[in-house]
Amino acid sequence: MRAVVFDGKLRYVKDQPVPEIPNKGWARIRVLRAGICKTDMELVRGYLGFNGILGHEFVGVVEQCEDSAWIGKQVVGEINAACGRCEWCRRGLGRHCPNRTTLGIQGLNGCMADYCVLPLVNLLEIPAAMSKDRAVLVEPLSAACEILEQVELQGTERALVLGDGRLGILCAWALSTALSNVTLVGHHQDKLDKAGWRHLRMVCGSSQVEPGADLVVEATGSGGGIIEAMSLCRPRGTIVLKSTIASQGGINLAPVVINELTVLGSRCGRFSDGLSMLQAYPDMPVERLITARYRIEQALEGFERATQPDAFKVLLEIG
Amino acid sequence: MRAVVFDGKLRYVKDQPVPEIPNKGWARIRVLRAGICKTDMELVRGYLGFNGILGHEFVGVVEQCEDSAWIGKQVVGEINAACGRCEWCRRGLGRHCPNRTTLGIQGLNGCMADYCVLPLVNLLEIPAAMSKDRAVLVEPLSAACEILEQVELQGTERALVLGDGRLGILCAWALSTALSNVTLVGHHQDKLDKAGWRHLRMVCGSSQVEPGADLVVEATGSGGGIIEAMSLCRPRGTIVLKSTIASQGGINLAPVVINELTVLGSRCGRFSDGLSMLQAYPDMPVERLITARYRIEQALEGFERATQPDAFKVLLEIG
Repeated sequence: MRAVVFDGKLRYVKDQPVPEIPNKGWARIRVLRAGICKTDMELVRGYLGFNGILGHEFVGVVEQCEDSAWIGKQVVGEINAACGRCEWCRRGLGRHCPNRTTLGIQGLNGCMADYCVLPLVNLLEIPAAMSKDRAVLVEPLSAACEILEQVELQGTERALVLGDGRLGILCAWALSTALSNVTLVGHHQDKLDKAGWRHLRMVCGSSQVEPGADLVVEATGSGGGIIEAMSLCRPRGTIVLKSTIASQGGINLAPVVINELTVLGSRCGRFSDGLSMLQAYPDMPVERLITARYRIEQALEGFERATQPDAFKVLLEIG
Repeated sequence: MRAVVFDGKLRYVKDQPVPEIPNKGWARIRVLRAGICKTDMELVRGYLGFNGILGHEFVGVVEQCEDSAWIGKQVVGEINAACGRCEWCRRGLGRHCPNRTTLGIQGLNGCMADYCVLPLVNLLEIPAAMSKDRAVLVEPLSAACEILEQVELQGTERALVLGDGRLGILCAWALSTALSNVTLVGHHQDKLDKAGWRHLRMVCGSSQVEPGADLVVEATGSGGGIIEAMSLCRPRGTIVLKSTIASQGGINLAPVVINELTVLGSRCGRFSDGLSMLQAYPDMPVERLITARYRIEQALEGFERATQPDAFKVLLEIG
């Protein structure tokens, strides 16, 4: 089958073997469309030492599994394949299972290929009325929804989202469903221009932002993001860290102690939350975040496009 | 009056003017005993750019104030002098009041002197049965109690406290009143030997500690403490940062995101909590943390002693 592989070098290959279902309870999925994520670009730079087929954002069709009711269904899939037996899995937090593999990230080949495999419990059928473009964005939107699961909001909080990339915009949109006072703070007017939705405010440059926010979401993906977040958050306020590559380098966390801030790390969310949000808000303009499309054969061009500063989401057309 | 002053250099002086009560609602206190805190040693190195009389841990006697009922009472005092009018003060969080001054730390002369001034609302009478040595430790113990106010504990959590200095030990003791599974992790066997109380376990070197703790308190006061804390905390667990000078330098916070950790900055606590804890646990051996005593005239020697690696708390005898 066709696949986008990283083995120290990013390659498009035509002769990858079709994956077998590893055990019952798993499904083989024919992939229709996949998204290129910032994590993919990090993996290609050596993050986590990943080798194999890339990709963890997809829409596909279930082709083979034990439960015939699933066959032919259009699905998206949670990316963490958990063991199902440990304490984390029992608590419904399989995305923290220490024995997990992760689609296209760790120990499990990804979805930038004609086929991938995932446990059936990871799959969610996408509603017939939902376009594949919207559905492929369930994964990053769910990561944004994770904030709503982690932070108990009253509705009256003033929130800032730092970062005008796709994750920042999705976080701002997700928060806008729960809060009336949300400001997206970016540095690229062209990107901010695409972020308008509901009552969301967009500001170019943090110097114009009033400090003392109740909640600051750090989605800049840059080392300085947390420093800016600390300076904009009120005492006893909450900072949510969304990007793993943020916060490297020389950071003095003294303001966290002095102002008794709560810093919450926030990663993947539940796909059911992202899917529900897309259904509840059919006007949420996630399609606006699709910058370009490439056939899987042109995957390397797609990755190149995704690294350009103006790019939000680049899709690979597969099936 | 006699005083320990920092004006770019640490000095003992004999001719400092006795402080006037700045406005009604304040009291002048004759200081009997003061403690040297790590923060004092930081201030002497230039932290916060403080100039003036040092000291924020004391026991004293109220000498002058409007409310005659206070005159002659032995007291300890909350260190933050809040405005009493802002939103923070209204919420009972005067220790985050943006207009506050802080005894011997910011904008207000401290207690290493014959006299200091503080608002009456900051004062707590110490019970007749309580020794001055115990009472002078209310301030650091209250900072340890702040953890119990910030973290909602079930009682079944496994907690680690990193750092065998006085703050680490007090945090471990405070947690031991609420949890049965608390381990103090240090690097100095002589210090750990002094930490035994109740069911607290002491471990020398973190390599012997099982990771996956529910709660990790970082009280090492060193830049690497948070890195160790991240490695010992379970996914979705909580790290409490106690020391402002910790966490400088090249720190990669990716584990906070990947494991969705909650990082809580934690500073001063309510003195009423520290005082109540000392009364509720008369066997809590806080006196064991007093390493040495010096007359105020020998304050410079006292500061020197406090910097030595084996020192816990050094007291200055004043009144």
